[in-house]
Amino acid sequence: MPSLNPAYADVLELLTIAPEGDEAAVAEVRARDSQLTKPPGSLGALEGLVEFLARWQGRAQPRLDNPMVTIFAGNHGVTDQGVSAFPREVTAQMVANFTNGGAAISQICALHEINLRVFELALELPTGDITREAALDDKMCAATIAYGMEAIAGKPDLICIGEMGIGNTTVAAAIYAALYGGTGADWVGRGTGVDEAGLKRKADAVDQALAHHAGELDHPLAILARVGGREIAAMLGALLAARHQKVPVIVDGFVATSAAAIAHAVNPAAIDHCIFAHVSAESGHARALEAMGQKGLLDLGMRLGEGSGAALAAVLAKTALHLHNNMATFESAAVSGKDA
Amino acid sequence: MPSLNPAYADVLELLTIAPEGDEAAVAEVRARDSQLTKPPGSLGALEGLVEFLARWQGRAQPRLDNPMVTIFAGNHGVTDQGVSAFPREVTAQMVANFTNGGAAISQICALHEINLRVFELALELPTGDITREAALDDKMCAATIAYGMEAIAGKPDLICIGEMGIGNTTVAAAIYAALYGGTGADWVGRGTGVDEAGLKRKADAVDQALAHHAGELDHPLAILARVGGREIAAMLGALLAARHQKVPVIVDGFVATSAAAIAHAVNPAAIDHCIFAHVSAESGHARALEAMGQKGLLDLGMRLGEGSGAALAAVLAKTALHLHNNMATFESAAVSGKDA
Repeated sequence: MPSLNPAYADVLELLTIAPEGDEAAVAEVRARDSQLTKPPGSLGALEGLVEFLARWQGRAQPRLDNPMVTIFAGNHGVTDQGVSAFPREVTAQMVANFTNGGAAISQICALHEINLRVFELALELPTGDITREAALDDKMCAATIAYGMEAIAGKPDLICIGEMGIGNTTVAAAIYAALYGGTGADWVGRGTGVDEAGLKRKADAVDQALAHHAGELDHPLAILARVGGREIAAMLGALLAARHQKVPVIVDGFVATSAAAIAHAVNPAAIDHCIFAHVSAESGHARALEAMGQKGLLDLGMRLGEGSGAALAAVLAKTALHLHNNMATFESAAVSGKDA
Repeated sequence: MPSLNPAYADVLELLTIAPEGDEAAVAEVRARDSQLTKPPGSLGALEGLVEFLARWQGRAQPRLDNPMVTIFAGNHGVTDQGVSAFPREVTAQMVANFTNGGAAISQICALHEINLRVFELALELPTGDITREAALDDKMCAATIAYGMEAIAGKPDLICIGEMGIGNTTVAAAIYAALYGGTGADWVGRGTGVDEAGLKRKADAVDQALAHHAGELDHPLAILARVGGREIAAMLGALLAARHQKVPVIVDGFVATSAAAIAHAVNPAAIDHCIFAHVSAESGHARALEAMGQKGLLDLGMRLGEGSGAALAAVLAKTALHLHNNMATFESAAVSGKDA
């Protein structure tokens, strides 16, 4: 069994020494919340979102002046195996669509005043076809993680982690199978909408990848390099950097969650600053969340990727913080308190 | 067994002749949706929301120029039984808070540009204590339903139906028990936050109400008058008028759903133009939705009432329609289609 490539030394250190959340800030949020004109606890998950922002921003008065959706885009050699309903060139076409405002995520961000940044990851150089070679060599994988860390510069106060990449539900399924066991059929879904034959090709591709790389999948970061992809490595970097820069993270769906799964497999506490936006309709996502002990905030039957589920969760977070900051208190509104 | 009071003749007619939805408008929405730059179906429930607006507005190009949250507020004699953690005067205090912008619903509406209208229903005249008398006589109940119908004038293109009324989770529980069977303990929850003893008082109050009115609960509208309340009658009227005025309805939580349950019990098709915003944390709501064959769109552990869950669902509807209207098509964005 190979030892882990030393290229990952910095990544491993950041994963291991993830800073704690600020419970004093959370306590201050709770103290204010208890004064607002509503029964305690009655806003449910909205109250939890404000606490989440306070805990990981380290601020008793959390801010959402600069929420950001980040989309990492990559291409995949495994598309040679006929695993997608769309041709590979759609990745670059959709990157242009994000920027031009035509995509769903563009319009969610426009309507709700969320910043959107798109990071192209060498779209002209698809990763290796995981059924017969490594997606990335370890140095490139480590460099791509490092790139993802830099990508979240610009002081966002919340980042939503999303992706675009024709073929990437297949590599995400391979990551889950390598981390959690099971066969390709246990983890693949219809992605952008493959038919039965395409679904079979996806399952077979995952099984072939697991067989080809058997014996080299002994560490989560080795799994990422062998059967992952550039956008997944970059999302891992973004997620890691966010923790160290006090930026709370909302993780999107099936593919984005695979980046969090790599971090979680190295150190479960490394994703404490992440919430999972939704349960994707992509089969396997609910199972992956369960394997990580996580729940999705929303369950809207979405399976689009591009950060769309995460952006909707960010809208809830914006709403929750707006209520926390702007609601009246029992005293200011002269409303009688509980059991008064 | 008494026959139904003739005061309800008009209401019964409106419940029975509920107009059909516009499937041609839905077909046009689907045709446009299939051209948008995303895999078919990948926006899940968001796509369903646009179809919902089209179907019940009867417009192939649905609008949300004038979405409206309506809050109906009433007081309840059953609060004499110690069923709430808050005193009765809070109903009027919160009505003032809604108008002054201090309540959660005020701030959700302000942030997301949704109109808010509050209807006070004789707050100085609490309904009868349902444990020993009818909440309303039939003429007053029918008149309150009629008032609710008028309340949604002003051409809203979507209404969210919410309520405020200290004590009203107890009367809603009594309605569900009368409609669906079971005892008070099966349907009551903690409402604004009663303790164990308060929960017992709520269950006892429901059981006493069912016993007191036994033999007079043979029709859903009779149930509404005997063990319901003014705001529930008015919400029923609003919901009914909406159907006839081509206004789609989003129903809020545990109490608002009881108004829909009355309509559903008379004619299940009468609520086809309603969606249920969320599953409340109030125990009994999930069961009531199940009894009606409905699901909540969101599940955020909320239990505030005042239309707050419905308003969040309206934010999703606004977002969904914005995407439908503003996303690029495969052709306009030069994105390759499926299996291209």
